[in-house]
Amino acid sequence: MRVTTHLDPAAPVHAGIPEHGRVPKYYAVKAELAVLIDGMAEGQAVPAERDIAAEYAVSRDTVRQALRDLVLEGRLRRQGRGTVVAGPKLEQPLALASYTEGVRRQGRTPGRTLIALERIACPPRLAADLDIPGAEPVWHMERVLLADDERVGLESTYVAVDRMPRLDEDFDPDSSFYGYLHDRLGIGFGDADERLETVLATPREALLVGTPPGLPMLLIHRWSRDTEGRPLERVRSLYRGDRFSFTAKLQGRG
Amino acid sequence: MRVTTHLDPAAPVHAGIPEHGRVPKYYAVKAELAVLIDGMAEGQAVPAERDIAAEYAVSRDTVRQALRDLVLEGRLRRQGRGTVVAGPKLEQPLALASYTEGVRRQGRTPGRTLIALERIACPPRLAADLDIPGAEPVWHMERVLLADDERVGLESTYVAVDRMPRLDEDFDPDSSFYGYLHDRLGIGFGDADERLETVLATPREALLVGTPPGLPMLLIHRWSRDTEGRPLERVRSLYRGDRFSFTAKLQGRG
Repeated sequence: MRVTTHLDPAAPVHAGIPEHGRVPKYYAVKAELAVLIDGMAEGQAVPAERDIAAEYAVSRDTVRQALRDLVLEGRLRRQGRGTVVAGPKLEQPLALASYTEGVRRQGRTPGRTLIALERIACPPRLAADLDIPGAEPVWHMERVLLADDERVGLESTYVAVDRMPRLDEDFDPDSSFYGYLHDRLGIGFGDADERLETVLATPREALLVGTPPGLPMLLIHRWSRDTEGRPLERVRSLYRGDRFSFTAKLQGRG
Repeated sequence: MRVTTHLDPAAPVHAGIPEHGRVPKYYAVKAELAVLIDGMAEGQAVPAERDIAAEYAVSRDTVRQALRDLVLEGRLRRQGRGTVVAGPKLEQPLALASYTEGVRRQGRTPGRTLIALERIACPPRLAADLDIPGAEPVWHMERVLLADDERVGLESTYVAVDRMPRLDEDFDPDSSFYGYLHDRLGIGFGDADERLETVLATPREALLVGTPPGLPMLLIHRWSRDTEGRPLERVRSLYRGDRFSFTAKLQGRG
């Protein structure tokens, strides 16, 4: 069986069906449900597990695996005891803009919930990243990222206490940290290095972000420097893989 | 139980242990194994499932889940009937450089295996992307990406036949397509838009790339234009999430 009906560059060319023709049952159900979902509106409920199982003559375990995959990929989301069609992924530009700007650009309201703001002795590996001699104190700020009150990510920021001693008093953790740096401290961003990878949510992260455990997440490490080229912050941002995509604009060399 | 021993900006701050202290068993085993792996060399075998189960007094199912997570994250890899410590992820720059360059820069040998090179009528959604009027033919070229003979990704490229009618005769599919465009056709890259997200491997993709089904993959969509600003190609590149990370250099606005 070779299926070429979904010839859409956004989709796998052969719709995920191996040429040798052995299609796992759960995947056949998933492919059928994907087509069904395409024709449904955001927030609409998919049929109940037992009805899907009856329709395709498969076990409920098979249906569960198909639904689980679609949830992990952000096509469906759990809502109460049912499963509904999810909205499109948020697109966040890979740029030195803040989370705030990226979310606003898509007509959503950004928010943050403070989990921790603590003063710690600079861990050795961080000392080089932040150009901090010895064990001087750093702030560690951990915030859950929100879009329209939906929890979508978790961000840990590390900065030298020396550069912003009053962070714990001056800064509203539900506001943009980059806005604070710019407006209150006159610190501008020069450039940054980022590294992006996919990881599985740890139980703690899943709990804080409200995701199923084991959900693929996009992890972005950031090392930024100010306009004088001095190391400024080290950030670890975790975004729900089912809710985010990242965009970049690349320039050629002519 | 609040664990802060792994205070390393590269790792989750609290090592993935929820503050409320309920640590899933498989995760506790995974965390122990992660520390063990840190002290081991690439290619070294981890203890057998039954020995790990005995050591931590958990079921073999629990051990299996911990090992499976570490494999999905690229910390371990299956080898024959055992499980060994995996090498570090390849770092690929998000830049208009080719796959070839990125892999070479890390001292690996890039390679490609041709799966399909077919001439198809341009699908409607692709017509706008490639600025092709009507249903003119496009090449669809699908290649498995290799690094040192290891299968690491799958790439589908779409280009207008009109711009390179002899692609099927002139081009060595195990070589760099960008090299071919530049050296044989004098086509240079102007710029490109990319979108990056995490998806689960379909059974067909898992088969072609040789990954466990359901492995999180990094999917990069690319729309590139030539130096005159004309749409040139539409690419769908799928990279093993356990083998790749992507890097970007961001410039501030001063």
